[in-house]
Amino acid sequence: MTRAATPPTRTVRVGSGAGAYPVLIGDGLFEALPALLTRHVGAARFAVIADDNVAPLHAGRLVERCAAAGIDAALLTFPAGEASKSRERWGELTDAMLDRGMGRDACVVAVGGGVTTDLGGFVAATFMRGVPVVQVPTSYLAMIDASVGGKTGVDVRHGKNLVGAFHAPALVVADPTLLSTLPDAERAGGLVEAFKHGAILDAPYFDRLETGVAELLGAHPAAAREAVHRSVELKASVVAEDEREAAYRQILNFGHTVGHAVEAASAYRLGHGRAVALGMVVEAEMGEEIGVTEPGTADRLRAALSRLLGALPTASDPEAVRPYLGADKKARGGRARYVLLRRIGRVDPGSGWTHELPDELVMAALRRL
Amino acid sequence: MTRAATPPTRTVRVGSGAGAYPVLIGDGLFEALPALLTRHVGAARFAVIADDNVAPLHAGRLVERCAAAGIDAALLTFPAGEASKSRERWGELTDAMLDRGMGRDACVVAVGGGVTTDLGGFVAATFMRGVPVVQVPTSYLAMIDASVGGKTGVDVRHGKNLVGAFHAPALVVADPTLLSTLPDAERAGGLVEAFKHGAILDAPYFDRLETGVAELLGAHPAAAREAVHRSVELKASVVAEDEREAAYRQILNFGHTVGHAVEAASAYRLGHGRAVALGMVVEAEMGEEIGVTEPGTADRLRAALSRLLGALPTASDPEAVRPYLGADKKARGGRARYVLLRRIGRVDPGSGWTHELPDELVMAALRRL
Repeated sequence: MTRAATPPTRTVRVGSGAGAYPVLIGDGLFEALPALLTRHVGAARFAVIADDNVAPLHAGRLVERCAAAGIDAALLTFPAGEASKSRERWGELTDAMLDRGMGRDACVVAVGGGVTTDLGGFVAATFMRGVPVVQVPTSYLAMIDASVGGKTGVDVRHGKNLVGAFHAPALVVADPTLLSTLPDAERAGGLVEAFKHGAILDAPYFDRLETGVAELLGAHPAAAREAVHRSVELKASVVAEDEREAAYRQILNFGHTVGHAVEAASAYRLGHGRAVALGMVVEAEMGEEIGVTEPGTADRLRAALSRLLGALPTASDPEAVRPYLGADKKARGGRARYVLLRRIGRVDPGSGWTHELPDELVMAALRRL
Repeated sequence: MTRAATPPTRTVRVGSGAGAYPVLIGDGLFEALPALLTRHVGAARFAVIADDNVAPLHAGRLVERCAAAGIDAALLTFPAGEASKSRERWGELTDAMLDRGMGRDACVVAVGGGVTTDLGGFVAATFMRGVPVVQVPTSYLAMIDASVGGKTGVDVRHGKNLVGAFHAPALVVADPTLLSTLPDAERAGGLVEAFKHGAILDAPYFDRLETGVAELLGAHPAAAREAVHRSVELKASVVAEDEREAAYRQILNFGHTVGHAVEAASAYRLGHGRAVALGMVVEAEMGEEIGVTEPGTADRLRAALSRLLGALPTASDPEAVRPYLGADKKARGGRARYVLLRRIGRVDPGSGWTHELPDELVMAALRRL
């Protein structure tokens, strides 16, 4: 066995219908993964899934360390990018596990950003009707959001994440030191979800993020650790209350009804974080327009997110966005629904935590940008 | 609303982690479906999924009755046959629901045999990470087995049901009068699973099936009702104890390790029921060979199943079967595992309800046939 370093690790336990699971957060935890897999997962074989950027950076090393520790692990890679979050790649990865003779005693280890945690999670959810998955996020987006909560899935031509499953991980291992290998733009995009957590649930956290943007973008260790820890705590508190998103969990979709539609309308050329940032500002404007959201909220979001991202994107063709609004998963009877803030740190309960609003309100806000 | 007939209905409740669900069994229940959907499912729209044999026989009529009752239901069809239990058809049916603007408030109604209940169930399990499914089995196989217990999935080139999900139905509606529209060979094939239920759990039931073959094949109402009811009761008792097939539920796989391999090796030209019948005889022979199964059990199964099916199939090329044995979902470390009878009506507990046996034992038994 490898001699695992013992970094100062913080643990957040996430309640789940399938039993609570731990999110371990600590600098250097990636090096300790072989020991953690042995300790936390009763599997005979591990399929380490990573994209072709993360494989040479991290995942290949993990497989070597597993081999050295006597753990049967195979590396399965796919091309980096949102386009890989598809039924086709899901099928290929599943077949690759079957090609290697893996069975119900296998475990998927998804090492990467949100695309990998969603795609690898869906492979695990459906392989022989479900095998365990260990999420090893390497991006801000995945550490603070995608790897926690059990949502897995792929995109289809009608929109993002429209096909998938709830599949709680057996374990999440977040090592903030990995964030330093990310391109700056990706760090910025991922932090949008941290601002969202502050905006919907925790005003003091939003304040800290606003003032700490430079340290977070530089992945300064203490700042990164704190943001990952607080965001995971906030997300865990929501997921524990409503894992299957019957109602309350929908608050995590603030900015996402518009964001997903903008992202789809751009044929996914616009990144998720940037699309959601735009969505948060637009949905805050809509809330102000109908008198639900405190005036000035959209301006504050716009300022904070512009500083984070350099500049806020615009929807170049608002009309192209319209058809994607009704395809959102929160839609009922084909009509889009929105999570609205009351103010920074507080969501308006609406009807089941969402509001049905006419498309025209979105279109007007998009055109104003 | 349609005026629902009130046939003598029997209800079996199936325990599930997602909440217990009812299996309604009664002559004429199919006509009452619109009222049952309204009563049991809180969905705004229904996707009725059926193959192109069942659509003109039953499913089209259901959609018309729904329309007459003011229920929004759309008919989605696919080509009949096991080859449709594929990732491709699953993707097409999902896209067809999205094309119609369906959202999380949709419900899948799977009307048909085992292919349809498995495929439609997997569509429901993964559509927007899970919408309800109502199973409306029209074959013996689906009524007594496939529609109960929440197993859904598709086949891949490595074998059957290797990709899928556990997704408990919201409701199962079994109307034995529909069995009379089935081809004789399909009735016979489906009843193999009833014999399996008797063989693993209920010797007196096995006796009744043995002596009642003619009535069952003719779909005589009382005989069909009794078999569906008893098989559903037996299956429900197993599923309630171990829904996710951690161990005990594996007893339902008696005959299936060999059966699935034979079926795959025939490129699915050999039907499921016939392949499982062969598998039950072979696995009983293997059990007798190693002294676990009471001598004479294989002969009794062979006689009963030959009478049911006209003749027992043989594996024309035993060597072609070998590579598929290790791909079975019960395999651990790539080695196949088998459910073995102690005698008719009783499974040997083995190790976690299965036994690891050398491939040679299977090959020898297959060659003897």
